Amino acid sequence: MDLYGKDLICTQEWSMDELWAVLDLAAKMKRDRFSPRWRNILQGRTFLMFFYNPSVRTRISFETAATELGGHAQFLEPRAMRLKTEKTAGETVEDAAKVMSRYAAGLGIRILEDKIPRYGAGDELIREYARWADIPVINMADDKFHPCQGLADVMGWMEWLGKGVGKPLDPEAIRGKKLLITWGHGALARSWCSVQEALLIGSRFGMHVTLAYPEGYDLDPEVIEQVKANCEANGTTFEIVHDPVSGYEGAHVVYSRHWMSPQAYRDGVFHKEEEIEKAMRYPEWICDEEKMARTANAIFTHPMPVDRGHEATDAVASGPRSCIYDVAENRLHVQKAIMALTMGNL
Amino acid sequence: MDLYGKDLICTQEWSMDELWAVLDLAAKMKRDRFSPRWRNILQGRTFLMFFYNPSVRTRISFETAATELGGHAQFLEPRAMRLKTEKTAGETVEDAAKVMSRYAAGLGIRILEDKIPRYGAGDELIREYARWADIPVINMADDKFHPCQGLADVMGWMEWLGKGVGKPLDPEAIRGKKLLITWGHGALARSWCSVQEALLIGSRFGMHVTLAYPEGYDLDPEVIEQVKANCEANGTTFEIVHDPVSGYEGAHVVYSRHWMSPQAYRDGVFHKEEEIEKAMRYPEWICDEEKMARTANAIFTHPMPVDRGHEATDAVASGPRSCIYDVAENRLHVQKAIMALTMGNL
Amino acid sequence: MDLYGKDLICTQEWSMDELWAVLDLAAKMKRDRFSPRWRNILQGRTFLMFFYNPSVRTRISFETAATELGGHAQFLEPRAMRLKTEKTAGETVEDAAKVMSRYAAGLGIRILEDKIPRYGAGDELIREYARWADIPVINMADDKFHPCQGLADVMGWMEWLGKGVGKPLDPEAIRGKKLLITWGHGALARSWCSVQEALLIGSRFGMHVTLAYPEGYDLDPEVIEQVKANCEANGTTFEIVHDPVSGYEGAHVVYSRHWMSPQAYRDGVFHKEEEIEKAMRYPEWICDEEKMARTANAIFTHPMPVDRGHEATDAVASGPRSCIYDVAENRLHVQKAIMALTMGNL
Repeated sequence: MDLYGKDLICTQEWSMDELWAVLDLAAKMKRDRFSPRWRNILQGRTFLMFFYNPSVRTRISFETAATELGGHAQFLEPRAMRLKTEKTAGETVEDAAKVMSRYAAGLGIRILEDKIPRYGAGDELIREYARWADIPVINMADDKFHPCQGLADVMGWMEWLGKGVGKPLDPEAIRGKKLLITWGHGALARSWCSVQEALLIGSRFGMHVTLAYPEGYDLDPEVIEQVKANCEANGTTFEIVHDPVSGYEGAHVVYSRHWMSPQAYRDGVFHKEEEIEKAMRYPEWICDEEKMARTANAIFTHPMPVDRGHEATDAVASGPRSCIYDVAENRLHVQKAIMALTMGNL
Repeated sequence: MDLYGKDLICTQEWSMDELWAVLDLAAKMKRDRFSPRWRNILQGRTFLMFFYNPSVRTRISFETAATELGGHAQFLEPRAMRLKTEKTAGETVEDAAKVMSRYAAGLGIRILEDKIPRYGAGDELIREYARWADIPVINMADDKFHPCQGLADVMGWMEWLGKGVGKPLDPEAIRGKKLLITWGHGALARSWCSVQEALLIGSRFGMHVTLAYPEGYDLDPEVIEQVKANCEANGTTFEIVHDPVSGYEGAHVVYSRHWMSPQAYRDGVFHKEEEIEKAMRYPEWICDEEKMARTANAIFTHPMPVDRGHEATDAVASGPRSCIYDVAENRLHVQKAIMALTMGNL
Repeated sequence: MDLYGKDLICTQEWSMDELWAVLDLAAKMKRDRFSPRWRNILQGRTFLMFFYNPSVRTRISFETAATELGGHAQFLEPRAMRLKTEKTAGETVEDAAKVMSRYAAGLGIRILEDKIPRYGAGDELIREYARWADIPVINMADDKFHPCQGLADVMGWMEWLGKGVGKPLDPEAIRGKKLLITWGHGALARSWCSVQEALLIGSRFGMHVTLAYPEGYDLDPEVIEQVKANCEANGTTFEIVHDPVSGYEGAHVVYSRHWMSPQAYRDGVFHKEEEIEKAMRYPEWICDEEKMARTANAIFTHPMPVDRGHEATDAVASGPRSCIYDVAENRLHVQKAIMALTMGNL
């Protein structure tokens, strides 16, 4: 297996062996974070980070990852780029990507719903960069997928349900376990990318999947079809429920997060305030201790930032079974591993 | 003494031995700036800089300091962070600080008056981060204190009144000397942090202190009480005068700087234009050669940027007894020393 | 020859030997990009980049250059600086430049037409910084000149007309060849800096120069006088034509780019929309295959970003004789060489 030069846009597009290579290296890097083994992997190399949408956590974790590999990540906000659009003169993605390939070892892109006219357009833009770039393109979250978050999620779950945090990872620790991904109410009108990626990677690693949300909050039908196919291939179950409680029964991993409805985009506009107003009508959709008591001593997971009091109570988010800080830390380790493998010739 | 992991929010909270350890190391680092001894102290390590208020000088000096220690400082503007407030959903400081502690070796924060609803709120926010962070939190200037500036100030004074710039530091060079901190008129409505920190650290190092300002420009009464206590403990004098001339008599160090009045904050609003208009009514409050002639051949000091023509004349600010560029340079050296000691396990 | 500490504001101000030293080193660095020979030239050193005007390409290429030399470039937007102006209080350029000289190994500045009240004011500001700074000041593009682009241009032309890309450079490859610099229509109201620098450096390296543009699009008369003088000194020809076709006859290098008219600035205002509207009236001013067929198998060059469909057709810009990506890459190599020679004591 040789991952050098490979793009990472969605985990579904990588083989299980390739995903495992990332997780295995991430676990080694976590155990021995500042080892001389990793210190010069990207020595003198540049990783470009294009933030169409700002994100403090994603930016810190990627920039720290590059630093720990001996390289340097540049934080770029493309508002400063004059890209060609249907309405305005400017540079084509082809030209931008080809020039960047001359300077950098890799390119990360983040683009979410409020910077695009319709669902899917962010993912398409990343693929357009990947088409022309000679260097690996890493999806740092788009409107559909968030592969680095998905890898950090399963790494955390394997640690908590397996040998412990920082210990060797065992994929068997989550195989056959029940993953509940449940909608939470909230005031942030969030993207689908994190939950869709978690559904995909969880089902591929052999978890039973329950998806819970109020009527009217369907996710991308194509992604759901893929999750079903993953479950079928693994002989596991997939179900969708529309009440806030039943999905918790017997769950091993509980993932409670708000997401916007499919009506959020209409006529090329992102109706953020309307989404928030609508979502706040479902206060019973919160992960609390009472619901957690129905699980098989489940861990609570979340890609952060947690909207406390809406998506989960403080008692759960800060409770003894919350793995949120470990998952957040894992973003660093999986991203180091991805960069080392795709850009570092490791 | 082991400073590893220690926060620095105000110099008053560090012992004299601890402050001296910083100054002593800073002087060594200044003499041998690019020595291999310091080059890898923060190798692969990340220092996060949160600039609620932008500042070119503070940013350059901290980022340069991290680079010279082999690490990397990330420049972050928290407008991109969705922090929870009384009015808006978002992440708690607890969650933000705990996650950052997983990624970084240290966290610097700068927050001044125009980003907060009342005096003191900036310092409180830094202390809230420090409460939850497992990594050292460094105050890069808040509405009350500016410890790195205070350390750079006394380092410069010791050089100029002692063995010379870049030479070994001698705390006796300033002990028993007279420090005049005088208000200057001006058009910038400046924070109290630099002058309050200078009052605190100057008095702790055994200087006689004279504070001069027009009626109506009182500083924080709690800080003034602490300065008086420092003077009492050292057997030195502390006085406040309200005329622009008399304080210069016999002074060894003259520090002329504008600061806003206690009326600058009312009803959660920072009345900047009103402050500027009021301050410009006192043109006699300027440090000029005539006033400097009354001193004991005093040096002129200022944390920069100097508002020339208001706080001091060009003849003084660019004169042979101006130590302003050396003090500015010392920001770099003291910050390298602070980072090495609190984050670098030195 | 010792370039340590030297400013680079326009290539015209450097001797041919000095320019050749840059190009020769750039070619070596290109051949062996991550050699240990260059890796530590700026170890622990800081290069400050002041972007009055943002630019993704210039920022990436300079920041990457610093990283590849082992140093660090800080991306600064001076809106955060409180500089003194005729109307506002703030810091003088003298104070800013003197303090930066204490922290950094070099200072790059970019300032274009929309940040200044009149043509020439950007170049003057850079020279004001250079006057007070003790460290080398590098022009990263101002309203008059763009020396790094000019060096990257001739490096690319020498590669394509000489021994090939990445091969040893031969200045004889362009001597006596015909350079056509032609105006293109377009919707971006572009600065004069790149074309003026190309005229200057092309003529100094012994090229025959043809400048083509519609009546009303004169460039800076002082620059044109200098270009004529360069041609005279080299015994080459210089001509200006006002039709979009004739200049192509026998050309070896074709440089098609839009630039604004001398009327763009009036009354301290940059009339951008008016310029664009006017420029779009000349659709025949485009570099296409038909015109290129009149040349002596010329290469197509452009400093990028290309305004495709206005300045050049896709067939030309992406054609087999387009050297645009190689020229863009050369920005990195010449900037590494400039930094190594002026800041790195090489």
